[in-house]
Amino acid sequence: MTRPRPPNSTPTSRLVERRQATMGPTSVLFYEKPLHVVSAEGVWLQTADGARYLDVYNNVPSVGHCNPRVVKAIADQAAQLNIHTRYLYDVVHTYAERLLATFGAPLDKVAFCCTGSEANDLALRIATAATGKRGFVVTEAAYHGNTAAVTDVSPSSRPGKPLAPHIRAVPAPIGAGLEAFASNVEAAIADLERSEFGFAGLIVDTIFSSDGVAADPAGFLKDAVEATHRAGGLFIADEVQPGFGRTGAAMWGFVRHGVAPDVVTMGKPMGNGMPIAGVVSSAPLLKAFADSTGYFNTFGGNPVTTAAALAVLDEIEERGLVANAADVGGHLLARLRGLTNRRGQIGEVRGAGLYLGVDFVRDGAPAPETATRVINALRERKILIGAAGLYGNVLKIRPPLVFERAHADMLVDALDEVLAEG
Amino acid sequence: MTRPRPPNSTPTSRLVERRQATMGPTSVLFYEKPLHVVSAEGVWLQTADGARYLDVYNNVPSVGHCNPRVVKAIADQAAQLNIHTRYLYDVVHTYAERLLATFGAPLDKVAFCCTGSEANDLALRIATAATGKRGFVVTEAAYHGNTAAVTDVSPSSRPGKPLAPHIRAVPAPIGAGLEAFASNVEAAIADLERSEFGFAGLIVDTIFSSDGVAADPAGFLKDAVEATHRAGGLFIADEVQPGFGRTGAAMWGFVRHGVAPDVVTMGKPMGNGMPIAGVVSSAPLLKAFADSTGYFNTFGGNPVTTAAALAVLDEIEERGLVANAADVGGHLLARLRGLTNRRGQIGEVRGAGLYLGVDFVRDGAPAPETATRVINALRERKILIGAAGLYGNVLKIRPPLVFERAHADMLVDALDEVLAEG
Repeated sequence: MTRPRPPNSTPTSRLVERRQATMGPTSVLFYEKPLHVVSAEGVWLQTADGARYLDVYNNVPSVGHCNPRVVKAIADQAAQLNIHTRYLYDVVHTYAERLLATFGAPLDKVAFCCTGSEANDLALRIATAATGKRGFVVTEAAYHGNTAAVTDVSPSSRPGKPLAPHIRAVPAPIGAGLEAFASNVEAAIADLERSEFGFAGLIVDTIFSSDGVAADPAGFLKDAVEATHRAGGLFIADEVQPGFGRTGAAMWGFVRHGVAPDVVTMGKPMGNGMPIAGVVSSAPLLKAFADSTGYFNTFGGNPVTTAAALAVLDEIEERGLVANAADVGGHLLARLRGLTNRRGQIGEVRGAGLYLGVDFVRDGAPAPETATRVINALRERKILIGAAGLYGNVLKIRPPLVFERAHADMLVDALDEVLAEG
Repeated sequence: MTRPRPPNSTPTSRLVERRQATMGPTSVLFYEKPLHVVSAEGVWLQTADGARYLDVYNNVPSVGHCNPRVVKAIADQAAQLNIHTRYLYDVVHTYAERLLATFGAPLDKVAFCCTGSEANDLALRIATAATGKRGFVVTEAAYHGNTAAVTDVSPSSRPGKPLAPHIRAVPAPIGAGLEAFASNVEAAIADLERSEFGFAGLIVDTIFSSDGVAADPAGFLKDAVEATHRAGGLFIADEVQPGFGRTGAAMWGFVRHGVAPDVVTMGKPMGNGMPIAGVVSSAPLLKAFADSTGYFNTFGGNPVTTAAALAVLDEIEERGLVANAADVGGHLLARLRGLTNRRGQIGEVRGAGLYLGVDFVRDGAPAPETATRVINALRERKILIGAAGLYGNVLKIRPPLVFERAHADMLVDALDEVLAEG
């Protein structure tokens, strides 16, 4: 029934040509010699040349690449029913209940969409509907997604360009930005209140991924959230990266900080790669938005993606993956901090659970060239990893949550070798 | 490995309660007594009470609910690899080539996203990057999706509310709006050119679904598109509804009109229910956008959704579904027009292929109450259908493309009975 496909043995250079011919200007490829992947399992990616790579980059397949339970859930559901949510069907309601059970009151309602971008786009409008205001405070190198409205709150997508007029950006809570975080947020709020836009809310990724990873001390978000609420704004916790147990402390990154978001957004690992995302909030806030704007998401919460998401929750719970993130992440953090003591290239190691950032510096200044060199050298050692941060100098460690101590040791040993080289 | 789930025999009333408790204000359900679906196949939906419904509503599963080839493609790919497009893998490149082969020059590049909303959100920004302008012309009851930016070009999502300041809406090319369409578009362009926003583009669904379905005479779009290009704007063809063969004339709805879009967006049936969507345009236009804004879509073009989309193309081509849409749609149109002659409730039957609209009127005025009554009466006869149009008085006929003449006859016979009742 299936037509012959070009074999996986297509030369990589030919595949790059085919790619440029069809995807062209919007194509984004990793590495000078891009990776031609053909299959994956657990924490491993297999390439067309027969090599196997340890995946320290991909947080989306959080319960492991091609997780058998998720694969079975997708296959079974796709064969039975896949439709929009204007009819009733069981799996979406079961999933909604299981998901909401991970939150406390008043966060008891969910709206499903397909991507973290759609979730954040909706969250911004919920805040505007609730407050009647349009101004948002974000961090300097934030990334919250790719729609027009969300790109406005994502300064990292427009480096060197001026912010949209209704946006104020504060330094990330890293280095000098940490102690000043709340006062910077307060000043940004005051500035918005003086503008024509007013203050609708503060949106942050609670692990500050794109800013270069910021986690400690737990609780540092409290004063900024209090200032947000005092000013009548909403606090939007973007859990697309830290959510679903990655920080090792709880299902959601905001819990570590002891703060109460008004709106929580989630996506990436929610369906282990299937396009499902969500906005969790309270009934009055969702109602204020729904009363002003008709909203329906055709693929949002469809049976196949929710079946995958339900299997992800099962895996996280039954395999204790939050505890695993804490254990393996703690081990990794300790070993990386051990490296810090011997190698001048590492300025700081930050993070929680299995979301860690290694700050590369040279003479006290950010060293993105070190990050680039390390990423390429680790790739030669069959380890996949990326960088983040305002200066691109932070090694970003966020493997699938099924990462084990042995994998952590492989990473640290390889990093040690690579740093010894230069 | 799988936990016990609540059985499909959950009473519908209990399921509605569970739904309200979890999805609340943003939940949209069809019918006073909502349908509790448990499985589907081809053009049939099965409900928990054992009944089977003919699906005349759902255009997303266009190659049939639970199409075996699509199901197998999803299952096989999910078990092998599912990842983002920053690595190379074969299926996305094969799919991109197959998809682009359905277009002529200069439409030779594709950007993948997950939903029609994301595709249109990107299309608007491509037009703004290319023209430096921000104003768009749309139709009065248009629907192009649900992001903040796309809701602005979707007056049907905000009925009775003023348009966003950078948007001008013209009457749909239906009735009096047909002959005046190009001159209305020209006037709207001129008005935008006098504003601070300028004119970036015209965006229309080429079958005007939400406006109440407009297809004839083929070619009526030409003058409006010429006016758009004369004014330096882009023509965005929203093919989310008419695309992938639905009009029976070609893969894309714009082809019937002999016009050349600058940007084409697609979604819904692209993956038969899997969240995949796309923007097709030319390299210079995509480059103008990509140079101004970093864009990446995590789930866009992932292997599982593109494998599904490839199977959809195979099905459309090998089973001749474009020709089937023409044949069955033509038969249906003729039979519906036969009804028109006997029943005063039908004002007009419009459409092309398997996207038809039946206009209900009373004393020459739109009769949405007839549409509502017919929809509910057809549901009692185990036929699922919906309504559209500025006044909600247009019966919207857009079944899966595997719809056969016998199904069309069931629909018309039932409609005939229902209309005879009042």
